[in-house]
Amino acid sequence: MTYDDTIIALATPSGAGAIAVLRISGPEAITICSRFFKSIHKKDLEVQPTHTIHLGHLINEGKVLDEVLVSIFKNPQSYTGEDVIEISCHGSHFIQQEIIQLFLRNSCRIANPGEFTLRAFLNGKLDLSQAEAVADLIASENEASHQVAIQQMRGGFSNEIKALRDELLNFASLIELELDFAEEDVEFANRDQFKNLITRITKVLKHLIDSFAVGNVIKNGIPVAIVGEPNVGKSTLLNALLNEDKAIVSDIAGTTRDAIEDELTIGGIGFRFIDTAGIRDTQDVIESIGIKKTFEKIDQSQVVIYLFDAEISISNLGIVLIEIEKIKNRHPQKPLIIIANKIDKLDDIQLANLTTHIPATSLLSAKTGFGVEQLTDKLLSLINTGALRNNETIVTNSRHYDALLKALEEIQKVQQGMDDNLSGDLLAIDIRQALYHFGEITGEITSDDLLGNIFANFCIGK
Amino acid sequence: MTYDDTIIALATPSGAGAIAVLRISGPEAITICSRFFKSIHKKDLEVQPTHTIHLGHLINEGKVLDEVLVSIFKNPQSYTGEDVIEISCHGSHFIQQEIIQLFLRNSCRIANPGEFTLRAFLNGKLDLSQAEAVADLIASENEASHQVAIQQMRGGFSNEIKALRDELLNFASLIELELDFAEEDVEFANRDQFKNLITRITKVLKHLIDSFAVGNVIKNGIPVAIVGEPNVGKSTLLNALLNEDKAIVSDIAGTTRDAIEDELTIGGIGFRFIDTAGIRDTQDVIESIGIKKTFEKIDQSQVVIYLFDAEISISNLGIVLIEIEKIKNRHPQKPLIIIANKIDKLDDIQLANLTTHIPATSLLSAKTGFGVEQLTDKLLSLINTGALRNNETIVTNSRHYDALLKALEEIQKVQQGMDDNLSGDLLAIDIRQALYHFGEITGEITSDDLLGNIFANFCIGK
Repeated sequence: MTYDDTIIALATPSGAGAIAVLRISGPEAITICSRFFKSIHKKDLEVQPTHTIHLGHLINEGKVLDEVLVSIFKNPQSYTGEDVIEISCHGSHFIQQEIIQLFLRNSCRIANPGEFTLRAFLNGKLDLSQAEAVADLIASENEASHQVAIQQMRGGFSNEIKALRDELLNFASLIELELDFAEEDVEFANRDQFKNLITRITKVLKHLIDSFAVGNVIKNGIPVAIVGEPNVGKSTLLNALLNEDKAIVSDIAGTTRDAIEDELTIGGIGFRFIDTAGIRDTQDVIESIGIKKTFEKIDQSQVVIYLFDAEISISNLGIVLIEIEKIKNRHPQKPLIIIANKIDKLDDIQLANLTTHIPATSLLSAKTGFGVEQLTDKLLSLINTGALRNNETIVTNSRHYDALLKALEEIQKVQQGMDDNLSGDLLAIDIRQALYHFGEITGEITSDDLLGNIFANFCIGK
Repeated sequence: MTYDDTIIALATPSGAGAIAVLRISGPEAITICSRFFKSIHKKDLEVQPTHTIHLGHLINEGKVLDEVLVSIFKNPQSYTGEDVIEISCHGSHFIQQEIIQLFLRNSCRIANPGEFTLRAFLNGKLDLSQAEAVADLIASENEASHQVAIQQMRGGFSNEIKALRDELLNFASLIELELDFAEEDVEFANRDQFKNLITRITKVLKHLIDSFAVGNVIKNGIPVAIVGEPNVGKSTLLNALLNEDKAIVSDIAGTTRDAIEDELTIGGIGFRFIDTAGIRDTQDVIESIGIKKTFEKIDQSQVVIYLFDAEISISNLGIVLIEIEKIKNRHPQKPLIIIANKIDKLDDIQLANLTTHIPATSLLSAKTGFGVEQLTDKLLSLINTGALRNNETIVTNSRHYDALLKALEEIQKVQQGMDDNLSGDLLAIDIRQALYHFGEITGEITSDDLLGNIFANFCIGK
């Protein structure tokens, strides 16, 4: 499947900048461009070698549009695998539009979102999971998600899948060959080797499936709910963590009625901190709604921070203990960090009293910053980032995750079938199914719908 | 004057896009880049020819930052005249920052605004007026300003100045030579030729100085005040002209209290339409302030549109005539376009009546769009765009305008001196002054302050 039309799009962000880059891809890219480009060295673009840059002017009907640099990439040595021209022009919106309009009037059309990468995929320059990684890479906002996307783009993940698929395909062929010789009762496929392969595949699939838990938080950030009575300093803590002041900080109890969410990168991992309205029993209807919302946020979060005011009476300490119990009862397994805030206001005796009554408490002063670093360390320790640090393959894409789950299901059927001494023809069906799901990941198996879904989420120009 | 340090900046707009381009310029650009760049074809960047592009990875301490394209421009064949590297990376903010930080840790520094162009100027790649045109080009938002900036960037204007300066310099030398032979009473400088040169220079200078009136409106847009009683449809007209709805349109008289300004490109020329509160006599204090503001806006505008409701009584027609007189009295020379709006509401008799009482009236229905095109044609006819159409040199920069005025003053002194048979040594002083002002335009004469002023207005990365 190759395209016979030539597409153009702005590849750089729109807005003011020194330069902008327009990307043109397709069989006529070089021909169309050479019609309007006058090299200052009077060179003919069409005979220039690939990967060369040429200074000159884009001229239409005697009028100079701009002085530009034109980069030539000849098929197949380009991003899309087609002939590609990149025009680096001055960064004025007017110039960009004039150039794009010129090409649109001359048998180019505007590229769809992700169409350059789609063409790269269809021309075999990237497999599907690598193409998906391009979008992840552009969207990556921290070290961890960037690293995972780069690794996926370089093919680490799909190479592994492809190798296993090839081995499995080989066995499938041999088993299907046996069917042709069914009456002679021969075994082309060595059953021990095949069992060994199935065991290996199962192990790899389980490992990749498990990695999705980490991959998912890396891609989307780890949700952390900050819970506590009004006025204990949740917003101040959030600000101390964020080092900015998006959340409203005020002294009026009950200020934070809606959950405010903000992202922070700690040790290269994205955390989403969710400031809640606390869970204090109240008569106020709006506050009650806030408490309901708080519990919803706790349900959705992976980590809960319970924050209370260190400077409280003995009777209020009881309330704190009750509230902590409420959270623990609801989610016994969820990591809970208990923090006494405003400890700058306590003397030594009060401090000792506090830690006696609520033993597992971290001490903090969001105001002075005391304890903030220990808190971020504790947050990091709760996340299993071992896989990340060991440069292991991590699955971040839910489409891949689904395909891996289905592939594992089929592989386990094959395993079961072999244990039950199932006949080759029945085994072959399950193997074909497993192969299908492997193919879905790397793009050997696609549908127009699937491709449409994937590439529609790309930006135009990529 | 050359730089010994290497600078880096993002050359494309910040924000999300498919790709971003980082520009590095200076003696170590290629060396530093090759330290982190691993070509997929294992090529050594340092020995690659100029104007070539290389695909590979930026790798720091074993970690892949991104897959990038690296373009090489070797001095002096680059924008700055130094060794330049352009890195085309994926358009994620995270990646851009990681790469910039990597280079900053390795003896690069962040470029100042306009520093790439400043270096281009100091290395003789551009003269000063061409460098200034680069900023104008990036800022240009319509055909006319773009065309003037392109022409200036290509040197049309400064080449003329430079040629005249050279001729003048030649005569200055000859006249100064005569001074050395004063006792022998020789004339090296042919006085007739010299007079002829002075006449030519005077003509060119006057022409360029005159062009500034056009150049200025091309660069900044032509201010047009829309004046009329409240509720005559000023905002609707503005919307019809703008084809959008930034101005508030309502039926309550006196809605438009503050002047709203918006730009529109007609025939490639930028117009700034200023919606005013009208000049109706009123008791309302806020309205009175509005009227004062309206007159201020009329003072600042180059064209005035007076708009009234076609569907008015005979007595109100009198008020319209009085208001038109007021504007004419204040600015007898300023182009005034009188428009009867809402003519869709009139029958033929009313229409005839109207044109009899107020003869020079254009008929309009902002609501249906009738007359809008005639209005835009009329606006265009008021602007002397002949120079633009004839591709003549147009001065748009007030710094150049000032220098041209000063040069003309000196040239006129020289002229006067020659008419008065002034001695050569006195003539030479005025010639030197004129040469100085010519040099200011093209940058032969500069000061750090001047350069600082000019380039501080550039964006970073240019």
